[in-house]
Amino acid sequence: MRCGSELPQIDIAYETWGTLDHERSNAVLLFTGLSPSAHAASSAADPSPGWWEDMVGPGKPFDTDRWFVICVNSLGSCFGSTGPASIDPRAQTPYRLRFPVLAIEDIAAAAHEVILALGIERLAAVSGSSMGGMDALAYALLFPGRVRALVQVSCAVHSLPFAIALRSLQREMIRSDPEWQRGEYAPGQGPIRGMRLARKLGMITYRSAAEWRDRFGRERVNQPSGDAFGINFEIESYLEAHALKFVGGYDANCYLYMSRAMDLFDAAAHGGGILEKAFARIDVNDALVIGVETDFLFPVDQQRELSRLLDAPGRRVEFHPLASIQGHDSFLVDMDRFRPVLGEFFASL
Amino acid sequence: MRCGSELPQIDIAYETWGTLDHERSNAVLLFTGLSPSAHAASSAADPSPGWWEDMVGPGKPFDTDRWFVICVNSLGSCFGSTGPASIDPRAQTPYRLRFPVLAIEDIAAAAHEVILALGIERLAAVSGSSMGGMDALAYALLFPGRVRALVQVSCAVHSLPFAIALRSLQREMIRSDPEWQRGEYAPGQGPIRGMRLARKLGMITYRSAAEWRDRFGRERVNQPSGDAFGINFEIESYLEAHALKFVGGYDANCYLYMSRAMDLFDAAAHGGGILEKAFARIDVNDALVIGVETDFLFPVDQQRELSRLLDAPGRRVEFHPLASIQGHDSFLVDMDRFRPVLGEFFASL
Repeated sequence: MRCGSELPQIDIAYETWGTLDHERSNAVLLFTGLSPSAHAASSAADPSPGWWEDMVGPGKPFDTDRWFVICVNSLGSCFGSTGPASIDPRAQTPYRLRFPVLAIEDIAAAAHEVILALGIERLAAVSGSSMGGMDALAYALLFPGRVRALVQVSCAVHSLPFAIALRSLQREMIRSDPEWQRGEYAPGQGPIRGMRLARKLGMITYRSAAEWRDRFGRERVNQPSGDAFGINFEIESYLEAHALKFVGGYDANCYLYMSRAMDLFDAAAHGGGILEKAFARIDVNDALVIGVETDFLFPVDQQRELSRLLDAPGRRVEFHPLASIQGHDSFLVDMDRFRPVLGEFFASL
Repeated sequence: MRCGSELPQIDIAYETWGTLDHERSNAVLLFTGLSPSAHAASSAADPSPGWWEDMVGPGKPFDTDRWFVICVNSLGSCFGSTGPASIDPRAQTPYRLRFPVLAIEDIAAAAHEVILALGIERLAAVSGSSMGGMDALAYALLFPGRVRALVQVSCAVHSLPFAIALRSLQREMIRSDPEWQRGEYAPGQGPIRGMRLARKLGMITYRSAAEWRDRFGRERVNQPSGDAFGINFEIESYLEAHALKFVGGYDANCYLYMSRAMDLFDAAAHGGGILEKAFARIDVNDALVIGVETDFLFPVDQQRELSRLLDAPGRRVEFHPLASIQGHDSFLVDMDRFRPVLGEFFASL
């Protein structure tokens, strides 16, 4: 791993859609944001809707009639891939905080093992949104010659202090919950309250003030809690519902590691601290960068910077700042804006 | 009180600067944000610097050679005025959660008792920033004929769902701390961890991403904590220092009441739900509205709305959207931009 530690053995969960062609030249690797599993879309084996159901499938932007799409569950996560909640085979107990410091590069390198195992020499494209966009960028930096096209959605070359502050606070909420027990909670248990708070702050940072103004305004709930500080406004009820849905599904220690990895990543580290030097390592033919004007976690200036850094002689770089009002999460919800941009890019490859 | 309850007796702490003239016509009432005391500026009686030291004094924008400035500690706060931490004389124990639901209008009405006690018929001006701006607006709505000029800084006619979500989460952080004990903690004690988290989220919402990018970037602390999730980045250290300074100084239950009052306030309630009708009650001669382009807690569109609503035949309304990069807190730190705007307005009265 990038921190110098080693894991004795890892599992990487992944799903695929479409068919790998004879030349093994049509593979598209898809990285996820912080929390999703490898289940990006439904399939015969698992018909439940995936986290990017509208984007991956026959005739969709990631057209599985043409591309062989591979989505990996990140190293460090808890949906089949090895992470802090996994059993350390040496100790026969979960790693918990004994898991080494996780880097975005480790997630990329673990995914590369899947690509090698599938016998793929060169990927047609690597794509990722949010944290997954950092993973995709790390992949292109670590494995030159292995990627023809790079797709960067709502991500950045590194995190700015505002985003670090928000994530640091989320982690502190989790670690402040006595049920966290310094990471030693029983498997399947953990800091429910802390995770609920962290998820609510997540939702606040993932959406936008404009969306909520239009959607909730100052509407009150029908049955306000008798408690003066309980749920009274619709926006409070919305956050509560989202937090309840999330908690229990995601391991708290995994969340801490993944969250910190986003703070620590800096593409400049691949060029001795100089971004331009790092980006000179990248040799993709085509690049697509998408950002959203209402995103304040990864503000659109960061995607503008990405597209500038990716610009190189002989390379096609497309940059699309979109006017979606759903903030950072727009790539998950504003399909009408995202589908054509991604669809046309993949069609042009 | 606005909720229908009564307090048997209240104290309102206030400080004054300058001299009330013979006609009692030069009084300026100053409301504070959520957390400050009435100590806006130093004085012979208390030479320690106040929270608006640069703004209140001889030759300063609130020129105490000309104006008699009165700053009140809000009802519901804990710096001398009656609030949830005060002793309920009927029960001989602190009110705690038995304090009635606090409204912004109650804070304004309590301040009015001070004005009446001072024998002031009509105020030369009422001014407030952030929550204090809501207080000042409530004052002008409740007491027509009593105010000649209204100053509204970084405030709004009501809170939008984004701001409500952030404050709701701050309150939940406090209430989730087991040390909160449903409000029944011992006087001077309370939910330290919850307050620290709430203060950090406060700092995040009070400043701006642009300021922190320029000020902290991705700088690391000199002595990073050995803990993988401890303080590592300068921005984390900055938040920690601010949180430690705040915690212990402010009573948690008071914070909950004040915070909720900001959610609940809606100027439209003074016009049967119609803002224009509410504002028709206001009869000030002059109004100054200041906003900041990087404020995302009270976005500048809300001050634009305020200035539009205040606009009336025969009234002078000035609106200044300022380019400060310190977000909501700019009125406390970007003195070079704020001083001339406030100074010229007061000089023109």
